[in-house]
Amino acid sequence: MQDALLALTRYWTDRGCMIVQPFNTEVGAGTLNPATILRVLGPEPWRVAYVEPSVRPDDARYGENPNRLQTHTQFQVILKPDPGDPQEQYLASLEALGIDIDAHDIRFVEDNWANPATGSWGLGWEVWLDGLEITQFTYFQQAGGMSLDPVSVEITYGVERIIMALQGVSHFKDIQYASGITYGEAFGQAEYEMSRFYLDDADVETQRRLFEDYAAEARRMLDARLPVPAHVHVLKCSHTFNVLDSRGAVSTTERARAFARMRGLAREVSALWAARREELGHPLGETPALPAATPPATLPEVTGPAPLLFEIGTEELPPGEVTRSAGAVRDALVAKLAGTRLAHGEVTVHATPRRIVLLVDDVAPREPDAERFVRGPRVSAAFAADGSPTKAAAGFARGQGVDVSALERVTVGDAEHVGVRRTDTGRGAVEVLVEVLGALVAELRADKNMRWNDPALSFTRPVRWLVALLGDEVVPVVASTLAAGRVTRVHRTADTPEVEVPSASGYLEFLAAHGIVASVAERRSSVVTDATALAESAGGTIDVDGESALLDEITNLVEQPNAILGGFAPTYLELPQEILTTVMRKHQRYLPVRAADGALLPHFVAVANGSCDADAVRAGNEAVLRARYEDASFFWRADLKVAPETMKAGLARLAFEERLGSMADRASRIARVAGDLGSSMPDAERATLARAAELAKFDLGSQMVIELTSLAGVMAREYAVRAGEPAEVAQALFDMERPRSAGDAAPATVPGAVLALADRFDMLVGLFAVGAAPTGSSDPFGLRRAAAGVITILRAHPGLREITFARGLSVAAEHVRAQGIEVAEETLAEVAEFMRRRQEQQLLDAGHDHRHVAAVLALPPATAAETLAELESRQGDEEFAALVAALQRVRRIVPPETTATYDPARLTEPAEAALHQSLTKVSATLGDGTSDLAEFVATASGLTAPINTFFDDILVMAEDQDVRRARLGLLAAIRDLAAPTLDWQALGTQ
Amino acid sequence: MQDALLALTRYWTDRGCMIVQPFNTEVGAGTLNPATILRVLGPEPWRVAYVEPSVRPDDARYGENPNRLQTHTQFQVILKPDPGDPQEQYLASLEALGIDIDAHDIRFVEDNWANPATGSWGLGWEVWLDGLEITQFTYFQQAGGMSLDPVSVEITYGVERIIMALQGVSHFKDIQYASGITYGEAFGQAEYEMSRFYLDDADVETQRRLFEDYAAEARRMLDARLPVPAHVHVLKCSHTFNVLDSRGAVSTTERARAFARMRGLAREVSALWAARREELGHPLGETPALPAATPPATLPEVTGPAPLLFEIGTEELPPGEVTRSAGAVRDALVAKLAGTRLAHGEVTVHATPRRIVLLVDDVAPREPDAERFVRGPRVSAAFAADGSPTKAAAGFARGQGVDVSALERVTVGDAEHVGVRRTDTGRGAVEVLVEVLGALVAELRADKNMRWNDPALSFTRPVRWLVALLGDEVVPVVASTLAAGRVTRVHRTADTPEVEVPSASGYLEFLAAHGIVASVAERRSSVVTDATALAESAGGTIDVDGESALLDEITNLVEQPNAILGGFAPTYLELPQEILTTVMRKHQRYLPVRAADGALLPHFVAVANGSCDADAVRAGNEAVLRARYEDASFFWRADLKVAPETMKAGLARLAFEERLGSMADRASRIARVAGDLGSSMPDAERATLARAAELAKFDLGSQMVIELTSLAGVMAREYAVRAGEPAEVAQALFDMERPRSAGDAAPATVPGAVLALADRFDMLVGLFAVGAAPTGSSDPFGLRRAAAGVITILRAHPGLREITFARGLSVAAEHVRAQGIEVAEETLAEVAEFMRRRQEQQLLDAGHDHRHVAAVLALPPATAAETLAELESRQGDEEFAALVAALQRVRRIVPPETTATYDPARLTEPAEAALHQSLTKVSATLGDGTSDLAEFVATASGLTAPINTFFDDILVMAEDQDVRRARLGLLAAIRDLAAPTLDWQALGTQ
Repeated sequence: MQDALLALTRYWTDRGCMIVQPFNTEVGAGTLNPATILRVLGPEPWRVAYVEPSVRPDDARYGENPNRLQTHTQFQVILKPDPGDPQEQYLASLEALGIDIDAHDIRFVEDNWANPATGSWGLGWEVWLDGLEITQFTYFQQAGGMSLDPVSVEITYGVERIIMALQGVSHFKDIQYASGITYGEAFGQAEYEMSRFYLDDADVETQRRLFEDYAAEARRMLDARLPVPAHVHVLKCSHTFNVLDSRGAVSTTERARAFARMRGLAREVSALWAARREELGHPLGETPALPAATPPATLPEVTGPAPLLFEIGTEELPPGEVTRSAGAVRDALVAKLAGTRLAHGEVTVHATPRRIVLLVDDVAPREPDAERFVRGPRVSAAFAADGSPTKAAAGFARGQGVDVSALERVTVGDAEHVGVRRTDTGRGAVEVLVEVLGALVAELRADKNMRWNDPALSFTRPVRWLVALLGDEVVPVVASTLAAGRVTRVHRTADTPEVEVPSASGYLEFLAAHGIVASVAERRSSVVTDATALAESAGGTIDVDGESALLDEITNLVEQPNAILGGFAPTYLELPQEILTTVMRKHQRYLPVRAADGALLPHFVAVANGSCDADAVRAGNEAVLRARYEDASFFWRADLKVAPETMKAGLARLAFEERLGSMADRASRIARVAGDLGSSMPDAERATLARAAELAKFDLGSQMVIELTSLAGVMAREYAVRAGEPAEVAQALFDMERPRSAGDAAPATVPGAVLALADRFDMLVGLFAVGAAPTGSSDPFGLRRAAAGVITILRAHPGLREITFARGLSVAAEHVRAQGIEVAEETLAEVAEFMRRRQEQQLLDAGHDHRHVAAVLALPPATAAETLAELESRQGDEEFAALVAALQRVRRIVPPETTATYDPARLTEPAEAALHQSLTKVSATLGDGTSDLAEFVATASGLTAPINTFFDDILVMAEDQDVRRARLGLLAAIRDLAAPTLDWQALGTQ
Repeated sequence: MQDALLALTRYWTDRGCMIVQPFNTEVGAGTLNPATILRVLGPEPWRVAYVEPSVRPDDARYGENPNRLQTHTQFQVILKPDPGDPQEQYLASLEALGIDIDAHDIRFVEDNWANPATGSWGLGWEVWLDGLEITQFTYFQQAGGMSLDPVSVEITYGVERIIMALQGVSHFKDIQYASGITYGEAFGQAEYEMSRFYLDDADVETQRRLFEDYAAEARRMLDARLPVPAHVHVLKCSHTFNVLDSRGAVSTTERARAFARMRGLAREVSALWAARREELGHPLGETPALPAATPPATLPEVTGPAPLLFEIGTEELPPGEVTRSAGAVRDALVAKLAGTRLAHGEVTVHATPRRIVLLVDDVAPREPDAERFVRGPRVSAAFAADGSPTKAAAGFARGQGVDVSALERVTVGDAEHVGVRRTDTGRGAVEVLVEVLGALVAELRADKNMRWNDPALSFTRPVRWLVALLGDEVVPVVASTLAAGRVTRVHRTADTPEVEVPSASGYLEFLAAHGIVASVAERRSSVVTDATALAESAGGTIDVDGESALLDEITNLVEQPNAILGGFAPTYLELPQEILTTVMRKHQRYLPVRAADGALLPHFVAVANGSCDADAVRAGNEAVLRARYEDASFFWRADLKVAPETMKAGLARLAFEERLGSMADRASRIARVAGDLGSSMPDAERATLARAAELAKFDLGSQMVIELTSLAGVMAREYAVRAGEPAEVAQALFDMERPRSAGDAAPATVPGAVLALADRFDMLVGLFAVGAAPTGSSDPFGLRRAAAGVITILRAHPGLREITFARGLSVAAEHVRAQGIEVAEETLAEVAEFMRRRQEQQLLDAGHDHRHVAAVLALPPATAAETLAELESRQGDEEFAALVAALQRVRRIVPPETTATYDPARLTEPAEAALHQSLTKVSATLGDGTSDLAEFVATASGLTAPINTFFDDILVMAEDQDVRRARLGLLAAIRDLAAPTLDWQALGTQ
């Protein structure tokens, strides 16, 4: 392994990097070494490479886990500014390490990096070697809250992983570190002992004191305007925080507070460093901006219609951006061409991770000429009474360079003007395209954009080349530093990675000949076909519909799909399938292979990019999966030895929030809230609920969930079943974690739904009560998600309609208060309002009309949903519109304080008596008022005509006070009858 | 510079070293990285190399000092076990760095390393490149208080210094760190800012808290049996201590306490690590011991007398050991040969740093045979009455393997025995020499010995080869792993560094032909001659007598002196000569060149070893001196800008001792004590004393003295003169620091002496009072030296005889008490006793008779010295002996409580009356009793006869009580008259 470090050192020094030493205080990553985090700031150029043993107390495993270490080795490279070809330089460094990049599948897979603790982020990729993440590759955009200009390229190699792959060993301890000594021999004891320190033995009170002392020292150093020692102390803070965290001593509130503090300090450090460097006059100089490309003085002319090819060459786009960007670019081109007079045929677009290809048929060689009329003075002002031109006319003619006699007349609006007719000569196609395509590139944008070495462009990933051909002719498009030509880039490992494109015609075939499938659809279908064939060869199949999102992603991770069948040991199938498929999909983007009955087979399909040595790539991917499954298996077996109750007892050691206590406290509150909310359920369900409540959240104490938090609930179900719990209880435990995110399914069972609601009501009430409500973009506990979850659950379970926001919150408040925490009524009102706002947002996001949404917002979610559906089905329904109008009319005239009591005897006019009778009948039909909208409309439509007649015939504001009161009371009764159904006024005028 | 680090990395990895990373917490040296300090423990082999940025807060200089940095770069190599040729491997590494070792003067200069804070030490060298210390090279003997077996070789390169020399730059900031970037550009800002932190801005209270927290965490980790995290926290402790120290916040007591604590922890860490490795079964294996060399089965015979050559080849011996070892080895050989019967001529010895050469003339080819008589029974028991042999005789004869008839007779004492005469055949010379020389090597010892890769040998430096020739014949001496042969080693840079020696004859010439001067005397005279000639060429001379000790040292630092004249800029001569010569002698071993009038010239003579490129070596040595002088100049100029009073004000910031306050407090106590002690001096001297007392110790606040503490006093004088103080005041300030060490001169002036006494009395009283008396080997404040200083001063200044220990201590106590610190009378008695013990030790060490010493011990030092001299001159003086006997007789008979009062009228017998008269006369002559011994003897001898007569004639214990009282009173008066002169009883019987 030390040879590899030396090889990298040599490689990067040969490329002008300076070598510095690892930092001499514990850092969690090479990024935090001041040689990165401070030097990326400001305009000074900087190229550095270094080894950084990165300390992550949380990853301590006593040296037992084959892939996880409390101290792992990073090799860090910073290139500032971006040299323009950092990916290529990086790939060559892999060759320097002895990796045959032709044989292996090396891919840049979207992975954006953010370190909120220092206010830093960047866009980039994790680099995969046969499915193994070996490097983080980032274009550093912000550090310490400051935007970076120039942008730095940060390359962070995960050295142990690379070496394990190169040496073909499956435990870090087996790495041959140097001649005659393994990694385990060299570092095993330290790994064990430091794990002990971080996990078991570090003294929590001491570490808390250290944290405070370091933070205070950082503060003082900032005040002394010394960014370097300040940074050192921020690092010490951060490491100490990590130690506390790995000791399980940090509650969520403390975490948020500590992060805020560290972030604040880190931002000040960055700002101070930048300021100090400026004061020092930027001793290393300032990075000059790359010069803009210059367009040629003369543009070529084309003589006949020709096809246009315009390719925007990029570094690997995020899969989600490939299709989106292609569409946006096509739309932009169509719109821009429409703004010219250039005739053209169909515009099509294709896209891969590395290119957006626009093709336009039959582009005319030129724009046609066009005439226009230049308007001068009114005729009345242009000619004197004698018909001779006035000074105004003469001046205008002179200005236009024509004789006054050449002026023509035209009528504009009501007035007749003189003017000049002019011909705009059509521009040549090349001229038009240079302008249009240049603007297209300059205006490229994605959801999340970045900067690179180009001073003007911005996109989701760097744009590195442009090809623009009109027929065989280069269109010399210029966009900032880029000049289009006829050279495109094909696979980086091709013999000639850059090739000349002879002509716009047949470009897709040209690309295909170079192994690139430009069409998304073609690639997807190729993936489906090949993967299916491979699955079949293993006696299985791919769930093409079920894996649709994954297939989309895979399709846009490659330019040329190369499906490879891999396998894993069938023994892993003893693990719950969710674990196996979660790992495959989320971590590896492998397609699971299933038997006809849906059961998982011990196979997977990985899709490599382009040609490679299939055996090597298969072996690599299998090793990665094996390592991940081995981890999971280890946890699974360990967890199965622990009874759910025992696991649950462990929750007392998991902090939740300082005042709200441990996770055990929270679980017991949830159990009590659920008991109260579910008190009226049938006995069987209540028994299920009671048992599930006893075990609620027990799997948070399992090693599997500690490792793979997204499996909370899933593991509860699995472990509960295996511990002999009834299936209903297991399912309730599974359900209570749902929905996990927006779009996730709600609990399938009622006991599960009640538990899930209790969980979320407790969280909302408790955290609002202790002042931890979300602010701005900060929502550390995910309270917005919790509120959305309540809504989703209640909508999915109309049977639980009685659990209104108010009731849920009030029950939860009772149990929070039982813990001695004050929960003010205003707090509950605040939570309820917070939840209604979430509901409103959800409904609007779902595309519902804002008036409809406003109308149903006060309703319980299930009712709101039904009512909304009904409202939408009544679009254009005149009877309904008439009813709405009538009810709104009623509401408008009745003062809000008016009560719905009246003396019918005072209603003597026919119209009012009729209305009274109709109302009595409708009221009787509707009963107690819990009708849904359809039922209400069906019944209440009978009131429309009487109401309208009433308003036509009757003056409500009669002089006789008793009569007036009776009339208003009658209307108020109608208002109150209609009110529970929805907020009619909110519907506005239909 | 980074290329150099890579070159070293490559070099040492090629030699089987593993590379590790710098440690990720601040360390003061590469040694403290666990890859050294822990791995050197125990039997496991270990070879490692790494870069270590070493943090020394005390060296922080804001980046302004050209040679000193708070973080400098070490390159550390550990070879465990010692490979046998580590010096050669090291030299080759210099070549790998691009250093032409033939052209330069590279030397191994004794430098033993010890780190009391971790209980670690080793013997070795600093390696000089043309006078520049570039590497510390150590055979690691103990770590954490544990003896190391095997011993590790530790090589620590000072990278910045090497690079500055290689690149020829004079400020570290100008080092070309990597292509296009200097060291200053890369690290200058951090250097400045971390200097600010360490020197000015680190918060003292915070750092104190951190120290406690780290120490406690280390303690806990030890209790948890986790040596690695324990070590990490010891390191953090140590760094924090260094920060406190550089902030000037550590008093001497605190320092001692902190060191004790860190040492204790470090030792426990080491012991625990070793124990844990043993429990783990020493995973890296155990280093096998080198096999012993095997002696040949048959030894060669020589036929005639021949010269013997025996050479013990070593690595560079400390200069002080070269001559001492040579003598010891010669004596040992002579003694051992005397234990054999081997005839031989003269034994001579020669020595260089790398060899001890024994030459013996005319060694006989064999020992002569020798006869001896084996004694049997007495003749009386051997023969029966009939003359026939008894069973006893027969049995003896049988046992001796002879016939009973062969028994002879011999008289032993009074008895005649039978017996057998036997001949011991003499052994061949080779056999004898193999035994003798083998034992000689095995028994080699120096004052301070070390171990290396040999399992049995031990010496001041490793013994690497043996040459043993008797005439032309190899004597196959074997000593542990070494076998003698005929191959010796000459200069390491010679074309053939190992050469065969044809014969013992002419070996010195043989060596001379290879450029090695084996004779110490020859080398010394060569140095003197060449240096003198060079000095003359520069118009100067060398003070051969004055530099005698330095010349001895230089002589034994080289095998072939190569004197080189260097120069320095005359502008440095503005500095006081003490500074210039201190630097030359102590740091560089250069000979100062002086003009005829003794004034320093801007030249020096350096003595290189063997041939080299004189210009390169001169340039190197000049650069080193320039750097050192530049430092000194900087301090000098800076200091001169500060008035002595201002400098003195700075003492308030220098801690002395927690309770005794700052150095300013101490200086003001000294001033007051001196005022009191000197109150009876003549006015002029009192005025001088008063002014000097005001400025006392002001130079401790100067930068020069902070850097070169040995110049305290020297700088006071220089700065005082330049600030316009009277010469007497300046001299007193200079004097008050003397004597600096045992053997150093006492103050020349009385005011200086009084100040010096006040200084030491204050220190003794103050520190004893606060409980900081020396214990065992611990004497952090140097109180033993202080006490010895008082004695030296008082002896040198008989005029200050009135300043007795008691008075000095009592005055000092008064001023310590004035500061609110209790000083018990017993404490003063304790200090006085402590001082007397020092005086006793000093006198005994000076070779005085222990009885004489005891006799004068109660006297003030000056008187004691005079009395001692007088006592010694009276050896064999019968008159004196008679007086002593008489006085002792008096003393023996008088009970101690008897007072010297008596009624002369009671003394009626002639002998008693005569004695009374004699006493009266003697008393009158002696006056008040402050006579010295000579005067006393001259006068009191008149008492001898009357005393003797008195005892002959008079019964003291008369029955008449009044008479008895009078007689005892008379004797008591004689006793009391004699008592102040000395303790007569202590003289014993002469």
